[in-house]
Amino acid sequence: MEVTVRYAETDQMGRAHHGVYVVWCELGRTSMMRERGVSYAEMERSGVLLPVTRLKVEYRAAAYYEETVRIETRVEAARSRSVRFAYEIIGPGERLLARARTDLACIDGEGRTRRIPDEVREALRAAAP
Amino acid sequence: MEVTVRYAETDQMGRAHHGVYVVWCELGRTSMMRERGVSYAEMERSGVLLPVTRLKVEYRAAAYYEETVRIETRVEAARSRSVRFAYEIIGPGERLLARARTDLACIDGEGRTRRIPDEVREALRAAAP
Amino acid sequence: MEVTVRYAETDQMGRAHHGVYVVWCELGRTSMMRERGVSYAEMERSGVLLPVTRLKVEYRAAAYYEETVRIETRVEAARSRSVRFAYEIIGPGERLLARARTDLACIDGEGRTRRIPDEVREALRAAAP
Amino acid sequence: MEVTVRYAETDQMGRAHHGVYVVWCELGRTSMMRERGVSYAEMERSGVLLPVTRLKVEYRAAAYYEETVRIETRVEAARSRSVRFAYEIIGPGERLLARARTDLACIDGEGRTRRIPDEVREALRAAAP
Repeated sequence: MEVTVRYAETDQMGRAHHGVYVVWCELGRTSMMRERGVSYAEMERSGVLLPVTRLKVEYRAAAYYEETVRIETRVEAARSRSVRFAYEIIGPGERLLARARTDLACIDGEGRTRRIPDEVREALRAAAP
Repeated sequence: MEVTVRYAETDQMGRAHHGVYVVWCELGRTSMMRERGVSYAEMERSGVLLPVTRLKVEYRAAAYYEETVRIETRVEAARSRSVRFAYEIIGPGERLLARARTDLACIDGEGRTRRIPDEVREALRAAAP
Repeated sequence: MEVTVRYAETDQMGRAHHGVYVVWCELGRTSMMRERGVSYAEMERSGVLLPVTRLKVEYRAAAYYEETVRIETRVEAARSRSVRFAYEIIGPGERLLARARTDLACIDGEGRTRRIPDEVREALRAAAP
Repeated sequence: MEVTVRYAETDQMGRAHHGVYVVWCELGRTSMMRERGVSYAEMERSGVLLPVTRLKVEYRAAAYYEETVRIETRVEAARSRSVRFAYEIIGPGERLLARARTDLACIDGEGRTRRIPDEVREALRAAAP
């Protein structure tokens, strides 16, 4: 999954604002799920939501406007009611820009925790190293 | 209605990104509606939506990080199925930063146009000059 | 130029927020300039800035999460100190989502208007219909 | 420091997007610094930058459109070249929405680490519990 840094994503320090990395992680995991046949859009329509419950980002180097950035996503743990993703954000010349990790919980439309549907968990597990 | 320019809203030109003004207009009109007793949050819960159908912004001067900006909103026309708001965005020293205008249509939860509820239209009309 | 609607770009109406279209237009024009050999990043480094002075968007239909949206950009007028771009934002099934227009002025690092460099204006003119 | 959840900050799950909390933390710390006489805007103009190097957010409950949210910020550690802030994001009825922590490094305009100016570090230390 690759993105190009948008002008609107820069801040006056002249770099991609650190909050944008959170959006990039979201792009990394939804695009990875889609590749494994899991559409997050469809999951939501069927009443299965995956809000982020924990987020950690370690910033190593800045990303600049118009640079192409690669988001490498892997599943670290796919449990029955939650899933943990890990990310590496890689800039030009294979420079590591950031490492990140998110925990997501599975809830239904009323906000109650529920099991991740089996086929989704299987797809996620297959994505774990 | 006043806002202070957030760091995340600046871009590498060192100013508030021009897209942010659109969010400021939204803040201007929802806060003005709230002052007139119309909660947009409640309207939406009762199935009355007001998406923007037309937007125009004329930028005059830049807004900078940590500056406090005032958004002056007025209703230009409150029709049965649409409403037009006009905005002036004023910076420090009463400097005019931008003028804007938005048209909003009234739709229901299924996306069909519908009449603006009478009490909302009355409240909006009272806000027209 | 194509973009996929990001989750972070949706709002609680379940659609891409209307402010996001402004960012998409920016992506459309910078990517179009890049294709014509003009890097906005390099222009800025050489002290040539192109802030937006006027913006107009006409929204026709909503864009939804994970939909791929095409931004068609053309130069409407390339003058000595300003340039006007026009955009069509096209959704799945060639549905027109929005039409937009932006005027940009050319300024230097101190904020004074200046002429658009000849090679940039030539490249922009070649992009006009 | 209080903010009201903006419509543009919601996502189609009907809550403030999790990335917005990162911006709220930034508002919390810059407003807290300002109260202690340290303007981040001025610091930057004098060539002292404080980029975020590490970020951690633990989400407990959702924030909804038009809700007023309080950001409580404290300095956990003010070292010679870095500073750690801790945040609690509190919703209506004193409900804890999130806890967060950020580490910031001090760099100069060329990106080299440098000492935090004494008067800034003193102001930050005074803010530690």
